[in-house]
Amino acid sequence: MTVEIDALLFDVFGTVVDWRTSVTARVQALVRRPDIDWSSFVDEWRREGYLAPIAKIVAGEEPWVPVDELHRRSLQVLLPRYGLELPPSMVERLVLAWHRLHPWPDAVEGLGLLKRRHVVSPLSNGGFALLTTMAKFAGLPWDCVISTELFGTYKPSPASYLGAARLLDLTVERVMMVAAHPNDLRAAAAVGMRTAFVPRPAEWGAGGTAPAADPAFDVVAADFVELSARLG
Amino acid sequence: MTVEIDALLFDVFGTVVDWRTSVTARVQALVRRPDIDWSSFVDEWRREGYLAPIAKIVAGEEPWVPVDELHRRSLQVLLPRYGLELPPSMVERLVLAWHRLHPWPDAVEGLGLLKRRHVVSPLSNGGFALLTTMAKFAGLPWDCVISTELFGTYKPSPASYLGAARLLDLTVERVMMVAAHPNDLRAAAAVGMRTAFVPRPAEWGAGGTAPAADPAFDVVAADFVELSARLG
Repeated sequence: MTVEIDALLFDVFGTVVDWRTSVTARVQALVRRPDIDWSSFVDEWRREGYLAPIAKIVAGEEPWVPVDELHRRSLQVLLPRYGLELPPSMVERLVLAWHRLHPWPDAVEGLGLLKRRHVVSPLSNGGFALLTTMAKFAGLPWDCVISTELFGTYKPSPASYLGAARLLDLTVERVMMVAAHPNDLRAAAAVGMRTAFVPRPAEWGAGGTAPAADPAFDVVAADFVELSARLG
Repeated sequence: MTVEIDALLFDVFGTVVDWRTSVTARVQALVRRPDIDWSSFVDEWRREGYLAPIAKIVAGEEPWVPVDELHRRSLQVLLPRYGLELPPSMVERLVLAWHRLHPWPDAVEGLGLLKRRHVVSPLSNGGFALLTTMAKFAGLPWDCVISTELFGTYKPSPASYLGAARLLDLTVERVMMVAAHPNDLRAAAAVGMRTAFVPRPAEWGAGGTAPAADPAFDVVAADFVELSARLG
């Protein structure tokens, strides 16, 4: 199918960068407690410290707070659960583990290819500063950085997608959302955006199952290099 | 002097790109009326269509409107003054002349050098979409794009500089404003930012005079390559 678009917006955590491996390795190296199951720790941190509070914020049940603060707050519950007591400076270093994430192997090359014909930008729940320093660390060649922080909300609220299109001065049908998460793509499609599903099987962890592609998605591609070829 | 900073914010129009030559050449090529003094036309457009309304908006006398709209509105006065009557599609093309500006010869190389050790971003009154497409057109290697549009104001309002530092999650003294315009630097210094003055003699046109460096500026450099060397 031919899809004429001007800009590609990328989910970042899980779609562009491998948060799971990166954060697990980082906290393990920082805290030096080989007896702890750091993989479970990071999974719980993601689920309880990020996904759960974000769902409440998007539902309007809680006020917006920056994602660093969500990560920080949840450590107050999570650290005691694992029998850990850490000084505040170490807690801050753990929070910053989410700023230095390694890209999936195809991400930098694929973004470089896509950038030749389209504006490429993150549209992420990560903070603006986080996304900017992560791009520098990982070599992600964004044309600009768009964080839902700019709209005082989080994905999948419609205001996230509409705000990004407005900033880029584009109508929604000229914008394609790229994500490994079907709910992100469905929310983008609901406001009129095009969608590209890039399943990242490793995103779901050892015990997890990758979701299936929805026939409603405009494009399905194994990685960003294939996505570039598909978009022509 | 040693100045320890994390991020450099750049004024764009006049400091990074040569709006005067670029816009004059573009409108001249579009309208094809060699009898018109396009240099004066563009000077008046800048002064009456941009600087004057922005001053009113910063003073709180007028509500914020996007810079494209300021450029568009002022053509309603300016075109008749030059005896021109143009179709709406041509008026739009004239407005977009401000989106495709050529960088000063040192800008791309200098930003590349500065980017190795600092976050580099515009902090411009140009719109977010304008700055993003301009960077793509001119090859400006920004780490992110910051427009005063994000704060619903224009420079030199203090909210512009404070908003940029907040987005980057930096204290103002870790941020340096780079500009060819002393008033921009004085406003940045007033909120605590560092300042680098890069005089662009050609910015002031044939009859204009470049302003002198203020001894209060932290750094004075002839271009961005020299600025990179000065910052070490």
